[in-house]
Amino acid sequence: MTKKIGYLGPRGTFTKIAVDAIFNGEDKESYTTIPECIDALDAGEVTYGVLPLENAIEGTVNVTLDYLIEKKDIKIISEVIVPIRQHLMVHPSQAETWRDIETIYSHPHAIAQCHHFLHNDMKHVKAESVSSTGAAAKYVSEHPELHIGAIANHLAAEEYGLSIVKKDIHDFTNNHTRFVVLHKQSSELLSKRLEVKGHKTSLIITLPSDHPGALHQVLSAFAWRKVNLSKIESRPMKTGLGNYYFLIDVEQKMDDVLIPNTIAELESLGCSVDVLGSYPYFLLNGISVHA
Amino acid sequence: MTKKIGYLGPRGTFTKIAVDAIFNGEDKESYTTIPECIDALDAGEVTYGVLPLENAIEGTVNVTLDYLIEKKDIKIISEVIVPIRQHLMVHPSQAETWRDIETIYSHPHAIAQCHHFLHNDMKHVKAESVSSTGAAAKYVSEHPELHIGAIANHLAAEEYGLSIVKKDIHDFTNNHTRFVVLHKQSSELLSKRLEVKGHKTSLIITLPSDHPGALHQVLSAFAWRKVNLSKIESRPMKTGLGNYYFLIDVEQKMDDVLIPNTIAELESLGCSVDVLGSYPYFLLNGISVHA
Repeated sequence: MTKKIGYLGPRGTFTKIAVDAIFNGEDKESYTTIPECIDALDAGEVTYGVLPLENAIEGTVNVTLDYLIEKKDIKIISEVIVPIRQHLMVHPSQAETWRDIETIYSHPHAIAQCHHFLHNDMKHVKAESVSSTGAAAKYVSEHPELHIGAIANHLAAEEYGLSIVKKDIHDFTNNHTRFVVLHKQSSELLSKRLEVKGHKTSLIITLPSDHPGALHQVLSAFAWRKVNLSKIESRPMKTGLGNYYFLIDVEQKMDDVLIPNTIAELESLGCSVDVLGSYPYFLLNGISVHA
Repeated sequence: MTKKIGYLGPRGTFTKIAVDAIFNGEDKESYTTIPECIDALDAGEVTYGVLPLENAIEGTVNVTLDYLIEKKDIKIISEVIVPIRQHLMVHPSQAETWRDIETIYSHPHAIAQCHHFLHNDMKHVKAESVSSTGAAAKYVSEHPELHIGAIANHLAAEEYGLSIVKKDIHDFTNNHTRFVVLHKQSSELLSKRLEVKGHKTSLIITLPSDHPGALHQVLSAFAWRKVNLSKIESRPMKTGLGNYYFLIDVEQKMDDVLIPNTIAELESLGCSVDVLGSYPYFLLNGISVHA
């Protein structure tokens, strides 16, 4: 059976950049929302799902995480970290006269990320929000007669045949989005083109009760084993404000001793622990995935 | 001088619900992006700014946080926690025949949050993304002739004269967004209508180096003083992946002894600590701010 990849669309988004970095030649299907993509994976319509997990433009970590926690048989098997680079692009017929554009279209988060550029260099230009950076690029490509531009990534420029007239207009450099590859069973997915930067194991830890120092006790179980954490985030439980669970990324592969022992110890303290996956991660940095 | 309130617009968004809960009668100005609103506050064009800090529909915590960290004289002086309740609404002329609608408009995150309802009850209906829940409601109000609906909050229904035909269609109950009131100096802003639920002090802590157990050591400084934390989140520094700082919410007011001593101790360990604010928080729960 051919493997099929589901991802958060439309074409020309940052998620698609992550998909193309990991998968090559497989059948790729875009979904409008994160839950639709996870449902398709759950129902076996696609073999893998690629979704933003953190700091995304198109999606939100909350929705992806909520569904990962709900669907316990879906695991993270790989992660691609994509630098968020925003460019100003126009229809090729306006590439010479781009300083005359009157309106710039983009996703509201992308407009916010390019605030300094828009405020200082394009003060006379109106910024209009649309539903995604890809949709903005598509709109510009379909309206060569209008004096407009889009803020989007290089893939959107390629997909819709636009000319990039100003590169890297985002305020903060080193802004990244983490995309995860999801699968219905635990495994590790490697990329043919990207070098493995390291491994992570993602855990969801629910504390028995909200008392001062409970988190400190949980972290002690990792600290005395010298297990490094690359991320920790408390998130409110859906049962109400004030009850928290923790998302913890351990900076190593699931092993036979250290992590299982930590988990056993946490469970004996009354915590519940779910493993979201143990997986390699890749950094997409400065390389063109179309090379 | 009359006080002016800046907020993340447009009208009919969840941010506006937070603004109306805290402020009454003052001059309110909506901004298209989070940085524009913060710039207006910085330049003295508005006295207060109201922005989403966590789990928002219209904005992202990252942009608000990035700017709060950059602009050190802007402080959090109050917080309103707003339950995220999504409703299906149509033009009043279609209130009886709403089951015949063919397309539902909303922000992509709101569409994702109502996935179960859309998937189970409205499977034949197309979901279309627009830039905000408010924009979706506006579009529906302007096109009474089309068989369309919007997913948005109750304020949007009021603002644009739409009929709510299905209430609370979001998947997860107890989904909240935290909105913060920002001001150019530290103070505490109380609400005339809402009861104070508690106090928080928000700290940004940067660790001296990324070594196993560093975070554990930081948390020890709070734990042995029995200072409770209501939130902890690690976030990558803009200087590159792998360097993290921590956003920590302490569940109490800034005092003369405990918190200053903790900060002094952390600084002596080589951490840098910034106070984003010490402020009361309010929960907007089940009450109508228009009552």
